Formats: sequence, C-alpha cells, structure tokens
Amino acid sequence: MELTAKVQQILSFYESDNPGTKTNLARILMSGKLAGTGKMVILPVDQGFEHGPARSFAPNPAAYDPTYHYKMAIDAGLNAYAAPLGMLENGAATFAGAIPTILKVNSCNSLAGSRDQAVTGSVRDALRLGCSAIGFTIYPGSDQAFDMMEEIREMSLEAKSYGLAVVMWSYPRGPKLSKDGETAIDVTAYAAHMAALLGAHIIKVKPPTSFIEQDEAKKVYEGCKIPVATLAQRIAHIKECCFAGRRLVVFSGGAAKSDADILTEIRGIKDGGGDGAIIGRNTFQRPREEALKLLSDIISVYQGK
Amino acid sequence: MELTAKVQQILSFYESDNPGTKTNLARILMSGKLAGTGKMVILPVDQGFEHGPARSFAPNPAAYDPTYHYKMAIDAGLNAYAAPLGMLENGAATFAGAIPTILKVNSCNSLAGSRDQAVTGSVRDALRLGCSAIGFTIYPGSDQAFDMMEEIREMSLEAKSYGLAVVMWSYPRGPKLSKDGETAIDVTAYAAHMAALLGAHIIKVKPPTSFIEQDEAKKVYEGCKIPVATLAQRIAHIKECCFAGRRLVVFSGGAAKSDADILTEIRGIKDGGGDGAIIGRNTFQRPREEALKLLSDIISVYQGK
Amino acid sequence: MELTAKVQQILSFYESDNPGTKTNLARILMSGKLAGTGKMVILPVDQGFEHGPARSFAPNPAAYDPTYHYKMAIDAGLNAYAAPLGMLENGAATFAGAIPTILKVNSCNSLAGSRDQAVTGSVRDALRLGCSAIGFTIYPGSDQAFDMMEEIREMSLEAKSYGLAVVMWSYPRGPKLSKDGETAIDVTAYAAHMAALLGAHIIKVKPPTSFIEQDEAKKVYEGCKIPVATLAQRIAHIKECCFAGRRLVVFSGGAAKSDADILTEIRGIKDGGGDGAIIGRNTFQRPREEALKLLSDIISVYQGK
Amino acid sequence: MELTAKVQQILSFYESDNPGTKTNLARILMSGKLAGTGKMVILPVDQGFEHGPARSFAPNPAAYDPTYHYKMAIDAGLNAYAAPLGMLENGAATFAGAIPTILKVNSCNSLAGSRDQAVTGSVRDALRLGCSAIGFTIYPGSDQAFDMMEEIREMSLEAKSYGLAVVMWSYPRGPKLSKDGETAIDVTAYAAHMAALLGAHIIKVKPPTSFIEQDEAKKVYEGCKIPVATLAQRIAHIKECCFAGRRLVVFSGGAAKSDADILTEIRGIKDGGGDGAIIGRNTFQRPREEALKLLSDIISVYQGK
Amino acid sequence: MELTAKVQQILSFYESDNPGTKTNLARILMSGKLAGTGKMVILPVDQGFEHGPARSFAPNPAAYDPTYHYKMAIDAGLNAYAAPLGMLENGAATFAGAIPTILKVNSCNSLAGSRDQAVTGSVRDALRLGCSAIGFTIYPGSDQAFDMMEEIREMSLEAKSYGLAVVMWSYPRGPKLSKDGETAIDVTAYAAHMAALLGAHIIKVKPPTSFIEQDEAKKVYEGCKIPVATLAQRIAHIKECCFAGRRLVVFSGGAAKSDADILTEIRGIKDGGGDGAIIGRNTFQRPREEALKLLSDIISVYQGK
Repeated sequence: MELTAKVQQILSFYESDNPGTKTNLARILMSGKLAGTGKMVILPVDQGFEHGPARSFAPNPAAYDPTYHYKMAIDAGLNAYAAPLGMLENGAATFAGAIPTILKVNSCNSLAGSRDQAVTGSVRDALRLGCSAIGFTIYPGSDQAFDMMEEIREMSLEAKSYGLAVVMWSYPRGPKLSKDGETAIDVTAYAAHMAALLGAHIIKVKPPTSFIEQDEAKKVYEGCKIPVATLAQRIAHIKECCFAGRRLVVFSGGAAKSDADILTEIRGIKDGGGDGAIIGRNTFQRPREEALKLLSDIISVYQGK
Repeated sequence: MELTAKVQQILSFYESDNPGTKTNLARILMSGKLAGTGKMVILPVDQGFEHGPARSFAPNPAAYDPTYHYKMAIDAGLNAYAAPLGMLENGAATFAGAIPTILKVNSCNSLAGSRDQAVTGSVRDALRLGCSAIGFTIYPGSDQAFDMMEEIREMSLEAKSYGLAVVMWSYPRGPKLSKDGETAIDVTAYAAHMAALLGAHIIKVKPPTSFIEQDEAKKVYEGCKIPVATLAQRIAHIKECCFAGRRLVVFSGGAAKSDADILTEIRGIKDGGGDGAIIGRNTFQRPREEALKLLSDIISVYQGK
Repeated sequence: MELTAKVQQILSFYESDNPGTKTNLARILMSGKLAGTGKMVILPVDQGFEHGPARSFAPNPAAYDPTYHYKMAIDAGLNAYAAPLGMLENGAATFAGAIPTILKVNSCNSLAGSRDQAVTGSVRDALRLGCSAIGFTIYPGSDQAFDMMEEIREMSLEAKSYGLAVVMWSYPRGPKLSKDGETAIDVTAYAAHMAALLGAHIIKVKPPTSFIEQDEAKKVYEGCKIPVATLAQRIAHIKECCFAGRRLVVFSGGAAKSDADILTEIRGIKDGGGDGAIIGRNTFQRPREEALKLLSDIISVYQGK
Repeated sequence: MELTAKVQQILSFYESDNPGTKTNLARILMSGKLAGTGKMVILPVDQGFEHGPARSFAPNPAAYDPTYHYKMAIDAGLNAYAAPLGMLENGAATFAGAIPTILKVNSCNSLAGSRDQAVTGSVRDALRLGCSAIGFTIYPGSDQAFDMMEEIREMSLEAKSYGLAVVMWSYPRGPKLSKDGETAIDVTAYAAHMAALLGAHIIKVKPPTSFIEQDEAKKVYEGCKIPVATLAQRIAHIKECCFAGRRLVVFSGGAAKSDADILTEIRGIKDGGGDGAIIGRNTFQRPREEALKLLSDIISVYQGK
Repeated sequence: MELTAKVQQILSFYESDNPGTKTNLARILMSGKLAGTGKMVILPVDQGFEHGPARSFAPNPAAYDPTYHYKMAIDAGLNAYAAPLGMLENGAATFAGAIPTILKVNSCNSLAGSRDQAVTGSVRDALRLGCSAIGFTIYPGSDQAFDMMEEIREMSLEAKSYGLAVVMWSYPRGPKLSKDGETAIDVTAYAAHMAALLGAHIIKVKPPTSFIEQDEAKKVYEGCKIPVATLAQRIAHIKECCFAGRRLVVFSGGAAKSDADILTEIRGIKDGGGDGAIIGRNTFQRPREEALKLLSDIISVYQGK
C-alpha cells in the first residue's frame, strides 16, 4: 500500500531517523481503518501491572486472555497494540504481522510506590517479538525523573539503532507538583516538550485542563495571551509545544466515563489537531461488541465522519 | 517419548519462545510419574539458605547431603529439582540427565533482612550445570521490588536467549501490605499476574486465603462476584489471572502440617486447575520412606487416582 | 577555505587532540561571519528543557519549530548551534553541513530539582547527527558535582576518540556557595579552570561579578593585587585561569536585558580577550529580524567594527 | 606425584568443576608435609590490611618483608599461602611454582568501618600471579552481606571459568547478631553452609562455641539433640552442615594464645573431622624458628602423630 | 643509558610486573639529575583542582601556563611531572619524550566536600598522552575509602596490563581520625602499607609526626620500642612498613615554609631512606629562578652533596 501524502509529510519530520525506524512509523500509520490519515488509535493494555488483574479484567473476563486484546485491536481496525512483555509474548507468533505492536518496557504497580517504574522489557525483547516500537513512561517532576530519562536515553538510542520507533508516556508527578498540577496545561505542555527533546517519535500525554500550575508560566500564558479555554485550544497548544506540530502526539482517555463524554473529548482532541487516542480501560472493561462499537465511533470522529 | 496432546497444548501457549526453551519446558513436563499429564511436582531445597542447615536438615540428617535430594526427586518420580548453586553442583555430574534441574539464582537468609534477596547464581552457571531453567524470587510490594524486577528482566532475557526456561517465585511483602495481605486472594492474584507479565514460564505462589487486602480490589471482587470461598475457586481465579490459564502455576505447601492437610490442599489445588506443587520441607524433613509415600500420594491426586 | 594564522595558533593549543577533533574545532572557528577571527558566536537552545516550552517560545511562536533555530543560526552567520537531542534531530538532515552543531548531552528541568542534570544524549547520537561537538554542564560545588565530572570524563574520552570536540558549561552552585558566590570572580575562575582541567576544548561560564566568595581566595586576590574592577579585567583573569589563554572561553548573556546592555557586556568580554558569546534567549524570544539585527551588532563588536 | 585415594575422593565431591579447578584443588592438597592426606595448613597474611603494619609485624620485624612469608610457608611444608595483592606480587616470580598461592581479593581495615570489605584484587590478578585460588570474605548478617554475596557470585563464576578454586572466609556479624552470636554454633554452621551454597570449594570459619544465638535454631538443636558440647562435636556438626562433609572446611586460630591451647584446639578440629587450619598471627608474630616449631607440631597433629 | 645497579635492584622488587611497567619505572628512575641514584624528585601540579587557579598561580602568574611546568620539570632535571588531564594535554605533544609524565586520574576540589575525589582521567588518556604512570589518591579512613580502593583496583589492573606504573597518594582522613591523627606515625604507616597492599609501585605520603593516634597501635609502638622520635626514624619506619623497603616511597612537602625548613625536612627524609620528594607549591609559587635554585638544592641533598 502506497504511502499517502499525509504520511509522507509526517515521516519527513523524522528526517534524522534511519529507514528502519521510518518503516516502523509507517507501519503504525498505515495500519487499520485510519491507515494513511495520519491519525492513530492505539490499544494499550498495561492495566494489569498498574492495578492488578481482577480490577482490570474481572468486569469483562474474556479480557484475562492476552489473545483477546490482539483480536480486539485487529478487528477494530486499530493502528497498534501496546502491552508489557508477558502480554505480547502471548500472541506475538499467532498474530505475527497482523498488527503493529509496541512493547511497554517499563511498568509501575500499585503494590509498591508510584513515583518510579521498573524496567521490565528490553529492546532485544521488542526485536525478537517483531514489535514496531518500544514504549516508555517518564514521570517529569518526580525524584526518579532523571534516572528514568537516563534509562530511556540508553534504550532509545539502542531502539533507534535497530530501526524501532520510540513511544513515550509523559506523566508529570512529584513533590513540587499539586494534584491539579499533574494535568495542568503548562505542566502537560512541559512534559510533552521534554518527551520530544528526549527524542520520542510518538508522545502520549493526558488531555490537559486549563489550570496553570507554575507562577512563572502563568505570567507567560497570560502575557502572551495563549488561548487555553477549550480542549481544542489546549490540544493545539500541546501540539505546538511538540516542535510546532512536527511530532506525533496522542492522548489517553483516563478513567472510565460515559461514551458521550469520551466522544466529546475525542472531538476536542481532533479539533485541536491531536494525532489520536490511546484508549485502554474504556474498551477492554466492557463486552467485546460494545467495545468494537465505541472504537468504531472514535475512529469515525478521526475520519471526520 | 512422544509429547502428549496435553503437553503440546501447553507448549502452544509459549508461542514466543525459541525451540530451546520449549525443549526445556517439555523436559520438565515429560519427566517423572506425571510425565505427559501437564501436572508437575517439583522438589525445592533452598531452606538451607533461608533458615540455616540445622533447622532445615537436622530432623532428617541424611538430607544434609545434596545427593540425597537428587535421589529423592528421581526415586519419587518428580518433574524437577530446584536448588541454589552449591546444592546443584553437588550431584549435577552424577545425576546428569536423570532429572531436570532448576538453578535458584537468588536467595534470602534469616541472618540478614528479609525484603530483598542476593543474586547468588548466574545463567552461565545454569548452563554449565545442565539445568533446564533458572528460578528467581520477587517480592512484589517491597522497597526492593523494582530492583528485583530489573534483575530478573536481564537474567530472563539472557536465559531465554540460551533456551532455558524461567520459573518465578512471587511472594508479596512490604510496607503497604498487612501480614494477612501477603496471602490474600487479591494480592496473590496480583503477584502471580505480575510474574506472568514479567515473562515467567512457570509461576509459583502460595495457596491464597479468601482475605482481600486492597479496598479498591474489594469493590471489584464483590461487584463482579468473583467466587473465592473455596480453595479450588481461588486456585481457579489465580489461573485465570495468569493469562486465562495460559501460564503454568504451581503452589507451595508452606509450613509443615499433617499429611491429611497437605493432601486436602493438593486436592483443592488440583480441583481449581492448578498445575502442580512445589513441596520441600514436608518431604526432606521426614524419613525417606515417609517422604516417598507422601509424594506418591500427592502424585496420585494429580493423576486423578 | 584556508585556516587563518589566528585559527592555526588556536589549534596549536590543542596539541594533544587527534586530527578529527582539530578538524571539528576548525569547523566551528571557520564558520559564519567570524570565520577565521578566532571569535565565536554560538546559538544555544536548551531553554525548553530548563523552563518549559511556553516560557521559552511563546514570546516568539515561530521559535517553537526547531528548524527556526537552524535557519536563524545560519542566516545570522553564527559559528555553531547547540541544542538537546530532539531539537537537533529536527533539522539535522535538512541543514546537514550548513552549520556546525553541538549536541547538548545533559539537561536540567525546573519541574525537578536543579542541582543535577540528566544525561539525555550520547556520543553516538552526536556522531549519527553529524555534530562537531558534545556539550555538557557541570555544577561545581553541588553534591552531584563529582558524579557529573565522572560522567563527562567518560563521555569526553569517547567523544575525543571519535574526533569530536567537547564544550563544557561550568555553572557553580551548591550548599557551600552563596547566591552571589555563584557568579563571583573567584568562583567563576575556579569553575572555568576545572572545566579546563577536565579536558574541555571550549569553556562556557557566566560573566563574573567583582564579588569574591571564598575567604582564602580573597587573601590572594588582594595580596596579589589581581585587578577585577572592570568586566574586561575579570574576563582577562578568567582567560588567564584557563591555561594562560590557551583554552577557548565563551560567555553567556544570562537573563534578558536591553540591547544596549548586551552590547556593552559583549564589548567588555571582547576587551578582556574573551573568545565569544553563547546567546540564546535574547535572540529567539524576539522577532526574527530584531534577532538578526542584534546578532549582527554583536558580531560587529567581535569584528572590531 | 600420584594422587592418593583420599585426595581422589575429595576431588570427586567437586564433580561439577572443570579439570582446571580440580587441578588447582589437587595442587593445594598435594603440597607440603600433609600432601595426600586430605588435610591442609594454610598461611594467611592479611593482618596488615586489618590491623596495620606495626601491629602485625613489629613483634617480628623480619615479617615486614613479604618474601619472609613465602619462605616460611615453603620451609614449614604448608599447603598454600594466602595474601592480598601487593603481598603476593612481592615474591610471585621468585617463588613461582614453589607453593600454591591464594589471592585474597577483598579486604577490610580498622581505619574505616568493619562491616564491609573493599574488593582489592581481581581474578585476572590471580591468573597473572599464578595463583591456585581466590579468597573472599563474606559477612553474613551485615547490611552489606547481599552486596558481598553478589560480588563473590561474579568473581567466583569468573574464577571457576579459568580453572581457579574459590576459598571463602565466612564471618558472621551485623545488627541482628550479638557479640557471642558471631561465634555461636548455630550461626557458624549457618555461615559455613551459606558459603557452601554460594559455591565455595574451601570454607573458612572460626572454631564455634557451644552458644546458640537464634531462638528458632535453639529449638532444633535441643529437639534433635545435636551434640555441641565439645569442640570435636561442633566441628563435626560444621562439616555435616557443609554438604555432609563433601566440602573442605578449615578453621582459623583467632587471637594469639599459648601453644598448648593452639594444639589442643587443633586436636579438637582434627577429631571432629575438620580439614585443616588457617593460621597467621600465631606464626609470623614470633621468631622464625619458633614458628616453624609450632607449624611442625600442628602438622604432626594432622598426621596423627 | 644503561641501568645502574641501584635501579636494577629496585626493579627486581617489582618482579611480578611485566616488562612494560618495568620500562616505565626505569624511565622515571633514569631521568633527570638523579638518574640512576634510585632517588626521585617529582613535580606535581594539581593545586588548581584543589584550591583553584588564583590561589595556586597568582603568586607567580607565569605558572598559569601548563607549559611552564613542563619546562620547569625538565630544566630542573626532575624525574617526572604529574598533573590532571587538561594540564598534561597542554604540552604532551610539545614535550613528548622530554620527561616522564604521570596522569593524576582523580581529583578533589574545595568548592565541594573533601572526603572523596572524582575520577577525572582514564588509563586510555594516560596511554594516548604518552604517560609513564597514572596517579591516584585514596583517603584511608573516609566513608568513601572502600569505593576509592575499588576504583583504583580496576584502574590499576588496567594500567598494569598496558605496561603503565601506578603511583598512589595515600592521605588518611575521616570520622574515626583526629586532625593530628591524619599525620600520625601509626596512621601514616598504615596508609602507606595499604597503598603497597593495593599494588602501588610508588607510594606518596606526608612526612609523619611522632604522634600516635590509635590506642591499639600505641601499645605496639611502645611495647616493641619502635623509634619514632626523629623524622629520619619515622621515614625509616614508613619504608619498613612498605614491604621492608621493597616499595618506592616519596614524601610531599605540605604547606609552604622556609627554604631552610624544606631542606632540613628533605635531609631527614634522605637520612631515613626515603626515595624522594614530591614538591609542588614550594616551586611554582615562586619565581622560576628561585624555584630552580630550591630544586637544585633539594637534588643536591639526594645526591649526598
């Protein structure tokens, strides 16, 4: 399938990457129902690590089986499926080539503290499992943020040298941030920008609120009259903060909410120029048919239908 | 000996592993009296590290000799024998090929603290001793849990690359867990799930109680009506939490108890679909003939006799 | 373009470096409007890491785009452009060979603490992006200073072995230093000297004040009558402290100030024998034409016009 | 010289070691006056590190010279000479092949704390100096015990791969142990057992007292009626705790005492089946002739004279 | 130039070193006015790191230029010149082969704490700069002492494998030592002995006082009547503590003092059998002619004139 002009333009922004990495970015952008549009919907299943298996999968027990998620992502026509090591190992051969995969290489868990993540996968694991990218979370603002940045520096260099893409989850938290500050527009923009500076190809942040956390930033947002009242405005600001739109940025859905609310949020993201959604809990915690319906609706938004 | 359909099915769940690792899993599953059934009984002898030699072996002094355990495991028709470096070195040549062995590569001891383990063996040791797998303990919930996960990430990648299997002991403990919480059903299921996510081939946890530790989990267990009243139900839940039964899970016997109690527990494990038992103290702390009798009875349960 | 006598003299001071490193130093010294004069003006854009994207670029939104800075540095006739990984990746191919680049390989951020920096780039990144040098910040006086020195020791050895040059930002701070002490003449001279001892080819410090922080140093400055009253005198002292002028030393502009103040400072630096300016915020936070005008004026000072 | 049946039996216990390591164990067991008996007397000279040079050697100034100890060990007909790097370097060429040597690769000192040791030698040093073994101290029970175990794990694997033997000094200490507990029979047996589990070929502990430190152990020692009243009984228990006698265990003399006391202790060790003595201060802190006399008397005990 | 009998004897003490290291030791011993005598005078210039540039060089501004020190060491007929990385890089090509050099590979500074040093140079740096040796400081007694010992263990092994010599500065300090204890005879002897045990070829300590710090040591010094009243006696004791004189030991001059005092101290060192002087501040902080005069006088003492 020939690359669309849109995808060619996006790839042109990744001018310093080798053809291997461009190929893997193209694989993600040319898969599923949104193939060629430059938009992406990605299924992440790392809830088991974060909240445990029952809290993640008991509402829809079929989801205990890792192959369920492969099938869901394929049948819904998504762009990629992201999960930790064991989840991907369960299906990587069966579904080889059926959908691009992203190995989430670090993970937190709620039995231990929440301001660091353990590195639980390797670039070599991603290669042997046929993945297109590695995924890594940083916690800007936490005491471990510098260590996490140094970990991804090494893994990112290694991944890129093998032609893999790098997806970065950037979730601010830490002693200098208030709870509201974790999703504040200034902090989210800062977190997304740092992921871009660290060399991420695809950046994942939470949809920001209009709250501004840092006093120094407040002066600038007000002084320069940066519009942040609507979600679309905030998304547009985030995109601008990622190298003037030259980096792909996708947004998570966060906690479960009504379908109407989800679709409203998705429309805001699309209107702001966001590149897509990473949506997990809201799909696998409901029956398969309902999930397929929601994903279809989300995709329709991105298709401009 | 040709693989049974049951073992072929189990191996199919390990679709991402190389033939070397599949061969070693097959060796374990095709050894001893339970060969081909998909069930396992494994003899672990790491008590010496944990409690010291006298507390471990004085009740049955013949057990001071490492070769005693090799012979016991072979004569009882077990699937594998697991022990730390020095124990395996004492017999690995004499009993070469007689029974699959698992090198336990980290160890705690009661002279020092109990929330971490020292790495005391290497993948290269496992290879030079002809082992089929490495064994590694993680303590989900402890302050060292992230470090332990990163250690096993590296050793697991190395082991798999050489065609070894990986057995993970997952024992929750730490500042956020109550004493009862360490064996709670939600915490045990979480611990087993994390071992699966970390890429373990065989997972070892303690038989869980019906206690639920975490408030967030309690809502789900009650809301989704997950049955955890009987041991068989809890075992079935643990198996489901390990990729919908697509990972082998074995259970330890814990502290010494009566044979009747042990066999009742084993029956519960079997009824719940557990894949077998790791049983140490209850065998080597009694006379050889009595141990052989108990192991024979346990195996009979798994044989459905 | 043949090397000028001035540049040949400067290169002679780097007698222990291999021809590769000399070539890269020559590239920097032979680029732009100051080519061949031995003076340099370098554009650094690491503000995004340090203060976040909005505080850095909102005053001049065109600067959100990394290619803006490449063009600015080229059009203004600067000697080099220095930035973190993601910034350089965005333009390294488009502007390949158009201007020497310096990969800033460690970075701080204001969401976390400010007495260490995360290593965020690698020598191999610098090589694959066609850079002429790596840039590294040390914080002499901080609790992390020894760790930072050991990091740059390793990266510097690696960089030099591949023929790259090493630029060192030396910014004193820490528990033993007062706020005024961070820019004191004795402390700045000490910081510059340590960068020279660590093997830096180009040293970057802030223009020092006439304040003297350390009692032991005060005795010497007064006893030996070291003149530090004027900026030119202080710059001359800094240069002397960098191996009697045998190392290149450039000075930053610090916080935004009036153009007149900037040019006065630049004249003082030039009169003291400073080798140039690293100037960031004062260029990219104003409209492009104004920035080009200011840079042209600065260059004129160094050209002795 | 042909191996005796006794030495052949001992080597058979090291069935997992390569011929290189067996050769080095054989060299130690086939050297000196006790050659072929399976018993060993080893001269260790690491007092200089532990207590400083004057406290170690001033009582017999000839001992300041490292070659003194080589000659002493050779002339007394000992099995091996163990010392830190600098001591061995002073004589390794002159006395090449004259006596097996053991490079002590970690060391403590009384200027700093006493619950860890610095790694001060390498396996490659042992190889280039023609040593037969490396020696390593662990402090079971100390906060650093896990780190020390991980250090020896790596060095031991490397040493064995090159055909060297591994001697482990196991000295319990730490916050959970009383002063008396450091030489208690239960703790000493535990410490010796852990060295065996860690893969040591030769284990060195202090002669234990009949004190029992741990409550849990006390129950077993009393319940199982383990005899520990006499030194010979305690030595026999230690040997049993080292894989039922399948590991070589030697005992140190501890602080200086009368010759009669030393010989009484040696007899107890021999009667209990101990494999020999490591004796340092009591030899080199007295005139050479007196030391030779004492060593001769000790050897006579082991010869059964 | 043929080796003298004296130098041949000294080299014989380094029997375990390869010919490369012996060659470099011979280079140092066969250079300058003391060539062949077995005595050495070495110029160290690491004051800039320790006290900053102005405090080091302002009293004699010509000394800001690193080439000044090369010339001084050569013109004064010294045995070697020791300095940190940047200092050596400034002259290593110009003065290639003119005098043996020692790369000081770790450094402290007075802006940060003083109980550790940063590793600031590498063995590979020493090789590429044509050095004969690396120099390393340990602080016996400090909390970092074990780490420093492990650093020099690795660097020393690497240096020796390439035929370099190892010079060790051993400066006691730390929480268990009084200020007077840092130069006490027992502590200095202990520090020198540990450097020897760590495998140093040349040991550098401060001239000790007759104070005795440690109670345990006091008993031995008094009991064994070790003479420490005169400097010559103390030097002789230090030499004895360095393998009965089989290691080269040189002494620093410490703080600036009168020439007469310096020469008296040098005579004491020579009378005690010390192998030479490392003298820095007292030379480069005075005019060149005066420095040459002082060095000439010092050399005359060692020549027995």
